[in-house]
Amino acid sequence: MSKLLTTIRLHPANERVVQVLDQRRLPFEEVMVDLHTPEDAAHAIREMLVRGAPLIGVTAAYGMYLAALHEPAASVESYYQQQKSMLAATRPTAVDLFAALDQAAQSILQAGSLAERQQQALAFAQQCAADSIDACRRIGEHGLPLIEAIARQKNGAPVNILTHCNAGFLACIEYGTATAPIYLAQERGIPVHVWVDETRPRNQGARLTAFELGRRGVPHTLIADNAGGHLMQHGLVDLVITGTDRTTRCGDVANKIGTYLKALAAQDNGAPFYVAAPSSSIDWNIRDGLREINIEQRDDRELRYIEGWAEGRIQEVLLCPEGSAGANFAFDVTPARLVTGIITERGVCAASEDGLTTLFPEKR
Amino acid sequence: MSKLLTTIRLHPANERVVQVLDQRRLPFEEVMVDLHTPEDAAHAIREMLVRGAPLIGVTAAYGMYLAALHEPAASVESYYQQQKSMLAATRPTAVDLFAALDQAAQSILQAGSLAERQQQALAFAQQCAADSIDACRRIGEHGLPLIEAIARQKNGAPVNILTHCNAGFLACIEYGTATAPIYLAQERGIPVHVWVDETRPRNQGARLTAFELGRRGVPHTLIADNAGGHLMQHGLVDLVITGTDRTTRCGDVANKIGTYLKALAAQDNGAPFYVAAPSSSIDWNIRDGLREINIEQRDDRELRYIEGWAEGRIQEVLLCPEGSAGANFAFDVTPARLVTGIITERGVCAASEDGLTTLFPEKR
Repeated sequence: MSKLLTTIRLHPANERVVQVLDQRRLPFEEVMVDLHTPEDAAHAIREMLVRGAPLIGVTAAYGMYLAALHEPAASVESYYQQQKSMLAATRPTAVDLFAALDQAAQSILQAGSLAERQQQALAFAQQCAADSIDACRRIGEHGLPLIEAIARQKNGAPVNILTHCNAGFLACIEYGTATAPIYLAQERGIPVHVWVDETRPRNQGARLTAFELGRRGVPHTLIADNAGGHLMQHGLVDLVITGTDRTTRCGDVANKIGTYLKALAAQDNGAPFYVAAPSSSIDWNIRDGLREINIEQRDDRELRYIEGWAEGRIQEVLLCPEGSAGANFAFDVTPARLVTGIITERGVCAASEDGLTTLFPEKR
Repeated sequence: MSKLLTTIRLHPANERVVQVLDQRRLPFEEVMVDLHTPEDAAHAIREMLVRGAPLIGVTAAYGMYLAALHEPAASVESYYQQQKSMLAATRPTAVDLFAALDQAAQSILQAGSLAERQQQALAFAQQCAADSIDACRRIGEHGLPLIEAIARQKNGAPVNILTHCNAGFLACIEYGTATAPIYLAQERGIPVHVWVDETRPRNQGARLTAFELGRRGVPHTLIADNAGGHLMQHGLVDLVITGTDRTTRCGDVANKIGTYLKALAAQDNGAPFYVAAPSSSIDWNIRDGLREINIEQRDDRELRYIEGWAEGRIQEVLLCPEGSAGANFAFDVTPARLVTGIITERGVCAASEDGLTTLFPEKR
């Protein structure tokens, strides 16, 4: 993997600067952007230079490190509370963000000196990144047998996996969540083919998932978000794997808008529908996803205009009449009843409180 | 309605020329294109200057008129068979196309002289157009009570109707099919609001439905195709009405790709799902839509690139990595079990052979 494909890192030449890959420019340009201040980190999250629940969490943790680098002389505790609130106000849905910020603040405030707080903040951010890589690798290992079992049934024909949005390494640090079993299958020589939902309105499938699968040589085909049901009706999808931005303790799954429609189609056609959920994305405090998860509404400009590549640069074009307004809901909730199973770093379980707390007994 | 919004007509100054509105340029430019030959008509259908099952049928009928204008001296019968085949080979899914061509050829070949054949061909095309207007108006009248009943329950709050693709007057001659009840409701002062699925990959919702609703002052909001399920989960859709490209005698509905996903969501949330189907779009010869309807696969370029408006002209941008291929299925089949009812020009019926043949007893 090219160095440019690191999603987040310390600046190689300056430990006081964090760099993120500007995913808004993929797949057309690969540009690392420097973050100097916690406000820069908040901007990177809010404006979606970084996106994906795990990467948002890690970026927020690095944001707290940048905050520590700029700690004022007085009011330490209220300063970090402010920074935490500022970073938390960027995106409303992913629970990783809030958990990472709480833990970062706690860890920072335990330290006795400025130098220790800075050290602690950096160590925490790096630990977040390492934990994410570890969780993704384990998700891959636990999800792999699902693919292997289908591959055996298909006698060497490629296993067709549909995914929605990007829950790949670009949403994380490495492996990705939904893609981890796919990358592991590929490494082991199991033939896989991925149907990539383009994922309107921001096209994370077309721009990011297609890009990262292409980079790693995984056979894939881009489809409109409308196409998944038709493919499933005709037996062309063996398995659906998506990521999640927030999963309730009962297994309801908030993920990119449109996930629910694919889950309905999977159920209607008997296709297994799995969600790859690192435990960092499980919100143990809530049960009913439809009632309790705040669904972000974004600017309708994201729907009315689209970016693409023409004449050697990224250009934006208007897609609808000037006078038409749009509504832009970023996520939807797939009820647990439509989810065949949840793939976590500790194993695969039923999408239910029983299933999840069997794997995570400390949350009972 | 401005004259430019006629979808098809004889050239006002030359009876030997047919004009169609080039819908590929909407909503940004309104341009009528001249058709001189049956090949021009085939091109207009194949390249989607005209689209929508009813309008495709009328355009094919006008194509046969253009064929009559260029009839060779000999082999009259085989000439019209050839022309029919040429015009039929343009789009595979809409049954209106094949029916219109069969009837046009039959009517033309009954005439005894060239002049009569030309006259007959023109009369048939004009009758097709008149029949379509009449069928659409009646669909509106039969569908209107569905909206009125919801409006009464909502005590004056707008009735929220979701539609997919464009089954509006732009797909027909006037009124449209799915939109006919909406336009009639608006005329009668019933408050309506339409959720417009953008309808990837060709964006007929964003480009055509939003445009025609806007022109007629119908309140509407553009949404991603991914959003309908979320809206239904939250009670924001009172009624779904779509068009159809081909309906089987048992009520299976082929319509724009993605319709099936909306039907699943409607069922899951108890939202009524109606299909507006002029009888010209019912294929009485087939029963099982999933097995018997040929689903058109179009060039993946339609998915990989998109057109929009920038710097005063229509521009095309690339949406995905250069190296990624796409699959572009144009339609899907919604099984009758998911369809609450079919709105035809003779009334509303259950989506079943019983329902349809009660309204069309001559097809028993």
